[in-house]
Amino acid sequence: MENWEVRSRPIRLERRFEFDRYEETRDFLDRLGELSESLKRFPDISFGVKYVNLTLRPDSEDEDVELSENDYKFAAQIDELLQ
Amino acid sequence: MENWEVRSRPIRLERRFEFDRYEETRDFLDRLGELSESLKRFPDISFGVKYVNLTLRPDSEDEDVELSENDYKFAAQIDELLQ
Repeated sequence: MENWEVRSRPIRLERRFEFDRYEETRDFLDRLGELSESLKRFPDISFGVKYVNLTLRPDSEDEDVELSENDYKFAAQIDELLQ
Repeated sequence: MENWEVRSRPIRLERRFEFDRYEETRDFLDRLGELSESLKRFPDISFGVKYVNLTLRPDSEDEDVELSENDYKFAAQIDELLQ
């Protein structure tokens, strides 16, 4: 998937978003919060004034589980928040 | 300073906050956002459903600068958000 990196141990999808201004960062985070609440899916998020790093893990307790179509769909929905 | 750890290279203050529910995490982050905007100081933040990790760096571009009274005061103001 474009823009997202698949990392292992544990398996996860990661993407870094960069913004020109704090207001844009905040706006993106607000929309991401709404999306997360509506889907009941919460990525791990790191952010500062002008960046947001996201980590999506498979929706399972099992550390050996693979990424599913649902995980990629969630990533695509996050990408759409930028538009 | 209680609860906060001083780390070096680069010098910084770190604290982990844990919460019982997502709503508490979100509420803390909202209040932290308001405090940051009012002070124009933005820590680096990592969070998930039930935790928030904060990193405060000295308010300076210089990597060798020490933590100042202002940095500790900011940390104390963040702690007050929990009450």
